Amino acid sequence: MTTLVELIAKKRDGHPHAPGEVERIISALVDGELADYQMSAWLMAVFFRGMTDDETVALTNAMLHSGDVLDLSSVPGIKVDKHSTGGVGDKVSLALAPLVAACGVPVPMVSGRGLGHTGGTLDKLEAIPGFTVDLDTETFIRTVRDVGTAMIGQTARIAPADKRIYALRDVTATVESIPLIVASILSKKLAEGIDGLVLDVKVGRGAFMKTEARARELATALVRVGTAAGKKTTALLTTMDDPLGLAIGNSNETREAILVLHGGGPADLTECTLALGAEMLRIGGVASTEAEARAKLGDAISSGRAARTMERLIEAQRGDPRVVADPSLLPTASVVVEVAADRTGFVAGIDSLELGLSAVALGAGRTRVDQKVDPGVGIDLRVKPGTAVKAGDVLATIRVHREGDAPTERVRAAFRVEDDAPAPRPLILGRIEAR
Amino acid sequence: MTTLVELIAKKRDGHPHAPGEVERIISALVDGELADYQMSAWLMAVFFRGMTDDETVALTNAMLHSGDVLDLSSVPGIKVDKHSTGGVGDKVSLALAPLVAACGVPVPMVSGRGLGHTGGTLDKLEAIPGFTVDLDTETFIRTVRDVGTAMIGQTARIAPADKRIYALRDVTATVESIPLIVASILSKKLAEGIDGLVLDVKVGRGAFMKTEARARELATALVRVGTAAGKKTTALLTTMDDPLGLAIGNSNETREAILVLHGGGPADLTECTLALGAEMLRIGGVASTEAEARAKLGDAISSGRAARTMERLIEAQRGDPRVVADPSLLPTASVVVEVAADRTGFVAGIDSLELGLSAVALGAGRTRVDQKVDPGVGIDLRVKPGTAVKAGDVLATIRVHREGDAPTERVRAAFRVEDDAPAPRPLILGRIEAR
Repeated sequence: MTTLVELIAKKRDGHPHAPGEVERIISALVDGELADYQMSAWLMAVFFRGMTDDETVALTNAMLHSGDVLDLSSVPGIKVDKHSTGGVGDKVSLALAPLVAACGVPVPMVSGRGLGHTGGTLDKLEAIPGFTVDLDTETFIRTVRDVGTAMIGQTARIAPADKRIYALRDVTATVESIPLIVASILSKKLAEGIDGLVLDVKVGRGAFMKTEARARELATALVRVGTAAGKKTTALLTTMDDPLGLAIGNSNETREAILVLHGGGPADLTECTLALGAEMLRIGGVASTEAEARAKLGDAISSGRAARTMERLIEAQRGDPRVVADPSLLPTASVVVEVAADRTGFVAGIDSLELGLSAVALGAGRTRVDQKVDPGVGIDLRVKPGTAVKAGDVLATIRVHREGDAPTERVRAAFRVEDDAPAPRPLILGRIEAR
Repeated sequence: MTTLVELIAKKRDGHPHAPGEVERIISALVDGELADYQMSAWLMAVFFRGMTDDETVALTNAMLHSGDVLDLSSVPGIKVDKHSTGGVGDKVSLALAPLVAACGVPVPMVSGRGLGHTGGTLDKLEAIPGFTVDLDTETFIRTVRDVGTAMIGQTARIAPADKRIYALRDVTATVESIPLIVASILSKKLAEGIDGLVLDVKVGRGAFMKTEARARELATALVRVGTAAGKKTTALLTTMDDPLGLAIGNSNETREAILVLHGGGPADLTECTLALGAEMLRIGGVASTEAEARAKLGDAISSGRAARTMERLIEAQRGDPRVVADPSLLPTASVVVEVAADRTGFVAGIDSLELGLSAVALGAGRTRVDQKVDPGVGIDLRVKPGTAVKAGDVLATIRVHREGDAPTERVRAAFRVEDDAPAPRPLILGRIEAR
C-alpha cells in the first residue's frame, strides 16, 4: 500500500491523488497516524500543485464527514444558505436570512466571528440584548422549521478536521490556496444540511481576494466544486474597496441591517442584499427569474413580513425583539467624535482595510480568537465615494467611551479627497453559475 | 519585525531570504518558537523554490553552529576529509583515510551507519574485533594528530539542528532538495573542523542520484557552497550502476579495503580510492598536480606505510591491528552458497540496488536505524560488467549462517547476461572544482 509519505511525494510531484487517497490523508490526520508536520508539508505541496475538482470534492466530503452533519429533512422546502468571503461593513447576513425566510425559502445559517479587519455575523447578532448563538441542534432545526431561519455559531462537532487544518494553514503560510479555501468553506456549509448555497465573493482592498481575477478564480472553483458535491451553487462577485453601507462595528451594523428590512438601508447594502436574496429565491425554487425574485423580496420588505421574521428569529434565540422596531435599544458607547475633511473636493476612495483595522483598534473586532468585542463602539460613515465635500464637512463619526480613544487621524487618512469625482464602480462585478 | 509565518510565505512566494532570516528560522526551530509543522511547510517551500548559494551557506552555518564544532587547530597541516553520497560496496573511506594520512594530510573523519541499500563506514569498521567508533573529542583529536587519521561516528552534539531537520524531511517528502542536501552534508562535515573537503557524488541505479545531470547539479552546488563557506572543496562524479569492487557486506568490505592498502584491491575500487586521494593530497598542499599526488599515493602503498597507518589507526581505536596483515581474522559466516549463471554470454549489467537490498535482507544492513548488522554475512562478486561467462559459471557467492538464508534467485536476477559485451563505462564521470 502507498505510504503516507509517498502520498505527500505524489502531490509534491504534481500527480493527482487517486480516489480514496485524499480521504485516507484526512482520516490519518484525524486518527493521529499522519502528524501535523506531515499535513503541513502536504498543504504546502497543494499550495504549489493545486487540486483537481475531484480531489477538492473528496477533501470537502472528508472534512465534512469528520464531524456531525445536520439532518434538515424534517424542514420542508429547499434549504439555502449564503456565505460571504468577508469584508468591512458586511452585515448582509443579518438582513438576508429573515428576508429570504419571509419569502418561503428556509435559511439554516451557521456563521463565524470576526477576526482581523473583517467583522463576524455572530458578534453583530450578540449586540442584540439577550441574543444567543448557542442553540442545541434540536432547537436550531425547530427554529428553522417554525421561523424559517436560525443563526448559530459553528460547534466543535462541525467539520473538526477543517478546524485542525485551518489552524495549521494559518501558521504555515498555506491559507491562500484556492482548493483549500473552497474545501474549507464548503465543508462547513454543507454540514448545515443545505440543498443550495449562494456565495458572495468579495473583491478589493478590504477583501481576502484583492484582485477581480483571483476572486473570479475562487468563485468559479466554489461553484464547480459545490455543484459537483451535489448542491445548487451560484456566486456573485461584489466590490469591497470602500465599506459596505455606512456602519462599521457591531450595534451600528445590526441597526443598519434592520434598516434594510424596513426598506431604509443604504443603497449599496440594500442592493447587495437583494442581489444575493434573488439568487437564493431562485435556488430555493420560489422564483424563476431575477425580476420575479426581486418583486417577492420587495413585497416581503414593504409588507413588514421581513421585519416580523427578524423579530421572531430574535425571540426564538432569546434576544429582545423590540430592537427591530426601535434600534436605539441596541447598546452604544456614549461619546461621538467627528472626523472632518481637511480639504474640499470629492471623496475619491475610502480605504475599507484601514477603517476595518481602526474599528478593531477601538475594540469592535479582535486580533486573537479569545478576545471579546465591544458592541457599542464603531465608525459611521457620512459620505461614500463620489460625495462632494467642503473642508470641515464631517466624513465620519467615531463612537467611543472616551474621547481620547478615537483614532481620528487614522480614520481621516482613510478618506481620499480629490479635485475630480471618481468614476462610478459597479457593486456587482459578475455572476457565476454552474454550467 | 517579520513574523515566522511571513518568512515561510516569503520562501513560498519565491523571494530569497534576507541576511539573518535563515539563521532566525533555525534558531527559532531549536528554541521551540518555530513548530515542526511550520518547519516542514518551509522545507516544502524550499523544495519548490530552491535556495540561493548565500541562503544555503547561511543554512549550513546555522545548522553547524547549532552544536559543537571541533577545534583541530592543535593538529598541524591542512585537514581534509572525504564524503560520499553513498553506494553499494562503497568501502573507499576505510582505505582512503589511512592512505591519505600516510602521505602527510591529516584526515579527521566522522562517518555514518548504513541505512537501506547503502552500507555505512562505521558498520564496516566495527567488523574489526574490538574496534570502537566512540572516541571522546580529546582522544579523536589526539589520534588525528598522532596517527594522521581517526574515524568516529556522529555524536548527538554535532549539528543537532540537522538531525532534527533530516528526521522531518524523511517523513515529509522533502529529502530530494539540492540545497537541503548540500546544507545537511556540509554542516556535518564542517563540524569536524576541516579545512578542505572532497566529495564523491555517485551516479546510477545504486546511488541516491539516479542521473548524471542531477548528480552534477548536486556536486556543483556542494562545491560552490563549500567554497563559499570558506573550505577548499572539489567533487568527483563516479559511477554507481554496478557495485564498487567485489564485496558487499561488512567484514568482506573491510577485507577488500585492506587489499587496496596492500596494492591488491579490485581495479575500480583502487582507481576510485586513488582519484579521491589525489584530490585530497592537492587540497592538503602536499602535491600540486594529479600525477605528483598519484605518485605519492602509490609510494605510500608500495612502501607499506599506508597499511602501517591502518594498523596504528585500528590500535588507537582499540581494535585488533593484526587484521591488516591477516584479514581472515575478521568474523565470517560459515556457509558459502554459489550463484551460477543460467546462460552463456557477457555480463552486461549488475544491479547494485538489488544486491544492496539483498545484503540488507541477509542482515548485512538495516532498514531501521535501531537494527544491528551482522558483520559476517554478505555477497562477493566473481564477475564485473564485461566478463564472459558460460552457463554454470559462478557469478557470486553468498555468505550466510544457514544455506536456506541465501537469496540465490534474487542475486542471480541482479546479473544481466547478454550475447554482446557491453560498452565500457568510465568510473570517473567528471570533476568539479571551484571557479
